[in-house]
Amino acid sequence: LIVAYSYVRIDDEAVGAEFENAMRSRSGLVESFPGFQRFEFRRDAGRRGHYVIVTWWDSRADLRGYLSSEAHRSTHSKLSERARAVIGPPRVEVHEVLTSATA
Amino acid sequence: LIVAYSYVRIDDEAVGAEFENAMRSRSGLVESFPGFQRFEFRRDAGRRGHYVIVTWWDSRADLRGYLSSEAHRSTHSKLSERARAVIGPPRVEVHEVLTSATA
Repeated sequence: LIVAYSYVRIDDEAVGAEFENAMRSRSGLVESFPGFQRFEFRRDAGRRGHYVIVTWWDSRADLRGYLSSEAHRSTHSKLSERARAVIGPPRVEVHEVLTSATA
Repeated sequence: LIVAYSYVRIDDEAVGAEFENAMRSRSGLVESFPGFQRFEFRRDAGRRGHYVIVTWWDSRADLRGYLSSEAHRSTHSKLSERARAVIGPPRVEVHEVLTSATA
């Protein structure tokens, strides 16, 4: 199980609100990709304007398949030009799950 | 939904292996705490010796309840003295989930 992080920092509050709205009204295309397991959109509780997009995948190949897709590219085009200029490219990180447990 | 991160960096490979084993043979006490949702033990795929412990909780109060418990303290005492000296205190981060989706 692979976990992909995109850390997005938005200092402008209006752009932050636009970003939150865009994430709440997502197209949901990612859910239909092979190997997709889970999606979470979060904010860092300790640092204002720090957002995190997290997706879980069966394998690294599945993650790559999504990242190189038209669906992934099109999600970015939904934001305003101003928002895209403010947001910039996210910092990306990949984790590998070694052990897990659920309630 | 609240997500708690502990980032643990271990440069010593033998201590890293001990840490992985300790996490694989966990007591599993965390699963029985009120508000517990999920646990994942991971390694950063891009940086050797970077581990991440992630837990999901219904609320911040539930997280606090676990962190202040005897069960949480006792997990640390399972590591060797050498391991505890090398590992040191983890960097901690808390996220708040705004939206989520599952396959």
